Amino acid sequence: MIIVLKPECSKEQLISFKENLTNNYGVKVNTWEGVHSTVLGLIGDTTAIDIDYISAQDIVEDVRRVQEPYKKANRKFHPEDTVIELSNGTKIGDGSLVLMAGPCSVESSSQVCEIARSVKESGAHILRGGAFKPRTSPYAFQGLKAEGLDLLKQARRETGLPIVTEIMRTSHIDMFENVDIIQVGARNMQNFELLKELGKTNKPILLKRGLASTIEELLMSAEYIMAEGNDKVILCERGIRTYETYTRNTLDLSAVPILKSLSHLPVIVDPSHATGKSWLVESMSMAAVAAGADGLIIEVHNNPKCALCDGAQSLTPEQFDRVAKRVNGLKSYLTNN
Amino acid sequence: MIIVLKPECSKEQLISFKENLTNNYGVKVNTWEGVHSTVLGLIGDTTAIDIDYISAQDIVEDVRRVQEPYKKANRKFHPEDTVIELSNGTKIGDGSLVLMAGPCSVESSSQVCEIARSVKESGAHILRGGAFKPRTSPYAFQGLKAEGLDLLKQARRETGLPIVTEIMRTSHIDMFENVDIIQVGARNMQNFELLKELGKTNKPILLKRGLASTIEELLMSAEYIMAEGNDKVILCERGIRTYETYTRNTLDLSAVPILKSLSHLPVIVDPSHATGKSWLVESMSMAAVAAGADGLIIEVHNNPKCALCDGAQSLTPEQFDRVAKRVNGLKSYLTNN
Amino acid sequence: MIIVLKPECSKEQLISFKENLTNNYGVKVNTWEGVHSTVLGLIGDTTAIDIDYISAQDIVEDVRRVQEPYKKANRKFHPEDTVIELSNGTKIGDGSLVLMAGPCSVESSSQVCEIARSVKESGAHILRGGAFKPRTSPYAFQGLKAEGLDLLKQARRETGLPIVTEIMRTSHIDMFENVDIIQVGARNMQNFELLKELGKTNKPILLKRGLASTIEELLMSAEYIMAEGNDKVILCERGIRTYETYTRNTLDLSAVPILKSLSHLPVIVDPSHATGKSWLVESMSMAAVAAGADGLIIEVHNNPKCALCDGAQSLTPEQFDRVAKRVNGLKSYLTNN
Amino acid sequence: MIIVLKPECSKEQLISFKENLTNNYGVKVNTWEGVHSTVLGLIGDTTAIDIDYISAQDIVEDVRRVQEPYKKANRKFHPEDTVIELSNGTKIGDGSLVLMAGPCSVESSSQVCEIARSVKESGAHILRGGAFKPRTSPYAFQGLKAEGLDLLKQARRETGLPIVTEIMRTSHIDMFENVDIIQVGARNMQNFELLKELGKTNKPILLKRGLASTIEELLMSAEYIMAEGNDKVILCERGIRTYETYTRNTLDLSAVPILKSLSHLPVIVDPSHATGKSWLVESMSMAAVAAGADGLIIEVHNNPKCALCDGAQSLTPEQFDRVAKRVNGLKSYLTNN
Repeated sequence: MIIVLKPECSKEQLISFKENLTNNYGVKVNTWEGVHSTVLGLIGDTTAIDIDYISAQDIVEDVRRVQEPYKKANRKFHPEDTVIELSNGTKIGDGSLVLMAGPCSVESSSQVCEIARSVKESGAHILRGGAFKPRTSPYAFQGLKAEGLDLLKQARRETGLPIVTEIMRTSHIDMFENVDIIQVGARNMQNFELLKELGKTNKPILLKRGLASTIEELLMSAEYIMAEGNDKVILCERGIRTYETYTRNTLDLSAVPILKSLSHLPVIVDPSHATGKSWLVESMSMAAVAAGADGLIIEVHNNPKCALCDGAQSLTPEQFDRVAKRVNGLKSYLTNN
Repeated sequence: MIIVLKPECSKEQLISFKENLTNNYGVKVNTWEGVHSTVLGLIGDTTAIDIDYISAQDIVEDVRRVQEPYKKANRKFHPEDTVIELSNGTKIGDGSLVLMAGPCSVESSSQVCEIARSVKESGAHILRGGAFKPRTSPYAFQGLKAEGLDLLKQARRETGLPIVTEIMRTSHIDMFENVDIIQVGARNMQNFELLKELGKTNKPILLKRGLASTIEELLMSAEYIMAEGNDKVILCERGIRTYETYTRNTLDLSAVPILKSLSHLPVIVDPSHATGKSWLVESMSMAAVAAGADGLIIEVHNNPKCALCDGAQSLTPEQFDRVAKRVNGLKSYLTNN
Repeated sequence: MIIVLKPECSKEQLISFKENLTNNYGVKVNTWEGVHSTVLGLIGDTTAIDIDYISAQDIVEDVRRVQEPYKKANRKFHPEDTVIELSNGTKIGDGSLVLMAGPCSVESSSQVCEIARSVKESGAHILRGGAFKPRTSPYAFQGLKAEGLDLLKQARRETGLPIVTEIMRTSHIDMFENVDIIQVGARNMQNFELLKELGKTNKPILLKRGLASTIEELLMSAEYIMAEGNDKVILCERGIRTYETYTRNTLDLSAVPILKSLSHLPVIVDPSHATGKSWLVESMSMAAVAAGADGLIIEVHNNPKCALCDGAQSLTPEQFDRVAKRVNGLKSYLTNN
Repeated sequence: MIIVLKPECSKEQLISFKENLTNNYGVKVNTWEGVHSTVLGLIGDTTAIDIDYISAQDIVEDVRRVQEPYKKANRKFHPEDTVIELSNGTKIGDGSLVLMAGPCSVESSSQVCEIARSVKESGAHILRGGAFKPRTSPYAFQGLKAEGLDLLKQARRETGLPIVTEIMRTSHIDMFENVDIIQVGARNMQNFELLKELGKTNKPILLKRGLASTIEELLMSAEYIMAEGNDKVILCERGIRTYETYTRNTLDLSAVPILKSLSHLPVIVDPSHATGKSWLVESMSMAAVAAGADGLIIEVHNNPKCALCDGAQSLTPEQFDRVAKRVNGLKSYLTNN
């Protein structure tokens, strides 16, 4: 951390400020006194230092972090890729391409089982499906809840596909005991209480980037989970909020190589929520794979026109089959070239 | 709701789609058949209709809501201003200007009591202070938690000021029983599970606009609380995330007259979090009052340089005293002119 | 400017980089060698240093400007407020409130003269009106062009009001010889060629903030004009582009005190374009004055329903009269309190 | 265009409004009178209708365009892909992948010729290079101007590569007579006067998306050029401005399939400016090709560390060679699968 002091900082203020830093944070402080200003360089672990605290000092002109504020999620301290293995042997982050597919909402036994069978046949590795749904309106369908979880498990029994589904409150964690991957949605990316409790489980967590979260904030939310002891975090780029209204969100594919460079965690992409339009899912899936994503999570519905939520962005099983073939082909090409 | 159909929509599809709408949503459907396209107009309560469902239909070119999707928060159905009265008689939304002030975090008994006495003397009506703090980093100070709530209550006993403080999880609601106003922070504005539970209490809720939430989404989150039976919602504009980096957020003061026009709920402004810079608080407080805000929530710290969080945006008690005098003077002027 | 070098930087690389900086930019370079990294501090005029050039060096970890990159627009080097005086004695930036009002587009002699008389009576100091109109669509009305300028001058003769109108290309500068204030629209804020040419005139320039420009970029565009010798720049906040769709743009009123702190130039606010809705103009005008604006530029049309552009945001003369009275009353109150 | 009228609209107002629409715009107006509201549907060419004018009417509740406001750029009216052929036979938009590469700024004869030879050898089809440079600061290097154009032409003579370079003012059009493709930069995307003049030439125009422009605005700017008679427009996605600060801009790759669906014009991607970081260029180039881009424009510098602008985002010739090989391989794979 580099701190630039104001020209008017007195010798006494300087000494007292440096003592303060050393005593409170256990860092070593190096001083560089220039002709017009003084710069401090903090050596040691600065992740616990509150940058707001530093800025609030009268004598501080500017402060800048050099070290990233996350440790456990940081590739610098963990150079190898994290590979997450599910109970059936499916691996995420090992260089292969993992396909998660399924309906936005679980609606019925026949719906979810039919979709599960179909996406499995097309090559999906994991079944996605919402039992608890975060909806902007209290009057919109909120999911089948506990019943939805049961239906997902039924589909798992029938197909062998592991399941990923979204949690919305801490008190539900027990209910998610048998889920293979627990998803934290974009709106809960900074629900820190939920993150902390999930950090105490040993479940893989699929953490979606918040609606308008920075890449660093996403990594800090991963850090919340990891700081409690759970290292199995999968990061998910799902589009960010911008002024552009043609798409539901703006898919930020540069986040894929950036996250993979800054962190060792697997990174997947959700082209369905990112664009909100089913006809864009294929091209954005291809682009995500080319950008280096470890997987895709795609909405598939056997009857998008009757989907109880997000129908506009769901693929039909036939469309998914085509996308799966194309992304797998592309992945093979990229692996061999 | 207006639905524009694609030119290729057949007579049979049209009939079936209209039946579908009537049967599922209990709305009346009027049809206007033009030369090149057909437009449907839905009459009745369309708040429960999922716009995504409509868009997903093959035959739909475009769909647009005419009616707002919120009812209980909507001024059309509740023309009079909502006035929220606290147990000590303080009123919010009655045309007066309510000042909420206090430290970002409660740090100690002496700190919070000293600040409480001071802001009360300057004319504050409500003491704010964080016991549970949502922090981007798991390594940053997370608040004194239950002890912080006790210290706030102690400050209330000493000064008579009602208290407002932030809740971060549903399981804490009991602990907040004696709090006068429960705050929902920006990061939890779409924590729908928390909103629903708060809707079952009869506590006034201070609902902050999310980091990148639209005005309509803020009203929909208020609707979540109100749909469960709790009408005591105070809306709070606290800046939105934009590309501008000079300020922490961009304060959207146009939200004040807009929210007051669309809704009957009181609207307050948080200039401290909006700007992140203490020297901007005075001018933005003045502007907020001129824009028609029902109140302000301002961070005050007896020693901003040692504040454990957000020191850079906190006023000293002396600075707050000046701001309070100026905004009260302005409010009197505006009321009489 | 503070440059943090990478740990792997060798002694030779360090020496050669420092020589490079000293020779190319004439700055003095101070070195602080820490245990793990080396920091350079550049003393002298760093405004001409290209931050991209520095970042591109292999050995550079991070670089940060401490000094602002603008000089002539910088209050540090010009502490007194700039006051711009028009030929009829109207002053902008002298602590008074200047009202600029008039139609979005000049449409006819009777229209512009009628509006001019009316806004003058309500207390406007300057007549605004578009002769050349930047329109998103090539098929939309593009203004009366040269004829529009003539009509504005006619209205000036009739009322004595100075005129402000927008220029769209360098080759028109001669045509604007008799205009009192030349406006550069948001879309041309970074039309650097136009800025340079305007810098060679001695006309007051009303420089609008770009659609998505930062405060620093606005000041750099002012610097372009001033670097050529023209110090008469009026800055204008007119709303920025965000994800919020309720308003045309999001009015950033915090820009007013920030610009007035960073720069000595006058700052005015355009509530009409910022909101795009006439019913929001009054409250945002009041808020702008409370925030410290030196003036307002407001669209007024004698028949907004027939306005050839931007009717939705224009006030009627009666509405403007009310706004003018209220903002002048507020300004008097603020001056005396 | 669909216009929803307010419930209070009288019969007389309705009749007069409809006449107004018919007479002014030559459109046919269909009326659908519902129980609670009346909806008008406009049939015919509504591109010239100003949506602001409609919104400004007292009796209008809401208005929505169904038809896109662009015609010549619209794929609906021009289903075949536009293919632009340069004088040396290079084609853009014919299904192949066109590579444009070269330095941000032309700096010297040896620099530009060396880079040109090198990128040609790696497979580039077109040489890019800036002679006139739009820079945020008036004190930054502004390009070699006319001399830079000469050096580009010299490089073309030596290598046979057509050249693309940016124009910044209308009065320079003659000087660009011998340039193969004229680039309009992001900051000039809505410099409508420049667009109109370029529309009168028969030069291919590379039109970059503005810093914060919507997809529709980009197409409207293309329409400005095309409305004057020049159909040779190449659209370029180069990243948009968001709150994310890790990258210079946020590359919006969904714009590629969207633009290719809405329009028949070729679409290329600039990964260098989009990310601002050379190490992201390779992955984003791959993703752009997978998303369906017709070409890439990439910054290459023989000595990025000494580049006079944008060094941080330039590739070395060796890095470009690798990128070119990879994207060409990917393109072949995609064409054959």
